[in-house]
Amino acid sequence: MSASLLEQLIESLRVLPGVGQKTAQRMAYHLLEREREGGRHLSAILAESIEKIGHCAQCRDFTEGELCAICASGSRDRHLLCCVESPADRLAIEQATGYRGVYYILQGRLSPLDGIGPRELGLDKLGERLQQGEVSELIIATNPTVEGEATAHYLAQLARQHGVTPSRLAHGVPLGGELEYVDRGTLSHAFGSRSEMV
Amino acid sequence: MSASLLEQLIESLRVLPGVGQKTAQRMAYHLLEREREGGRHLSAILAESIEKIGHCAQCRDFTEGELCAICASGSRDRHLLCCVESPADRLAIEQATGYRGVYYILQGRLSPLDGIGPRELGLDKLGERLQQGEVSELIIATNPTVEGEATAHYLAQLARQHGVTPSRLAHGVPLGGELEYVDRGTLSHAFGSRSEMV
Ligand SMILES: [Zn+2]
Ligand SMILES: [Zn+2]
Repeated sequence: MSASLLEQLIESLRVLPGVGQKTAQRMAYHLLEREREGGRHLSAILAESIEKIGHCAQCRDFTEGELCAICASGSRDRHLLCCVESPADRLAIEQATGYRGVYYILQGRLSPLDGIGPRELGLDKLGERLQQGEVSELIIATNPTVEGEATAHYLAQLARQHGVTPSRLAHGVPLGGELEYVDRGTLSHAFGSRSEMV
Repeated sequence: MSASLLEQLIESLRVLPGVGQKTAQRMAYHLLEREREGGRHLSAILAESIEKIGHCAQCRDFTEGELCAICASGSRDRHLLCCVESPADRLAIEQATGYRGVYYILQGRLSPLDGIGPRELGLDKLGERLQQGEVSELIIATNPTVEGEATAHYLAQLARQHGVTPSRLAHGVPLGGELEYVDRGTLSHAFGSRSEMV
């Protein structure tokens, strides 16, 4: 006998991060018992999102347009470019600090063993942008992990090659931690006391 | 400015149980970054499930057909009827015990303050079924909570009215606990040592 629709629903919910068999089952029952309208809405928005959300042509953040809201804004300081690993990190900095510059989202970090090199992170395009001369400071906000640090050093070199000052968030972000989960106060402080990379 | 599609996706994911803002955000990024195919599949299955999955005409469990697989089966013992609160409890018993009878799923429990009375749980239909004479034992497997116990007493009375023997799972299921989360061994033992309600 082929899997029932309910079994297929439970299985398909496991695509969500951190959702195992038991949680998927609870989610399926919850949607069918109490949230059919919300589930219908989720299904529609999810399909539309996957179809329409792509990457910003300038910063690689998620956006449904050609440019994201920040890159399209006329009120951001284009001399400051902050480089983060993920859209979640970009959002964390945006929410925690008063930063008014723009961003570059790597959508990953250098990880040679996983086949993720400079090209996969769009660093050729980043280099071209630094070359254009508008950016004066590259704020490197990769995570303080081994791979994040290696990526930071690569980015600092890239910046210097193009005459741009690289800086790094101040210590205060816990070592080995994930930027996305740092509390706002710590993140804001670390952002404010960033120092030039030497 | 109206909410972006990404913001709408994050918001709509919060319909899932136990999913707050931070988790919804992580799920949305994960789907867009790494699981677009799985997300597309989830969207399709979710819409189809909500449209097609209804309740079994005999036991009220979820099913896409007129009858669920258990009620439609020719190899289950129809003299034994096990009454549970939810499809998840039905599944837990089915997976943990060797039970070969059939089920009745209340889809809730008596809760007068929430406006959930015998009619909302389909107890009129259950009464008709007990009246037909095929069922000899009503195994009451509601949760050992205050409302579950009240529901059990109501069900036991209903059974006796129709000349059916009510029984209750043996103690062993922790008081105040949820059947769905009981380990298999405990649940199997409790099921096997159920006793007639007096
Ligand atoms: Zn952008
Ligand atoms: Zn059924």
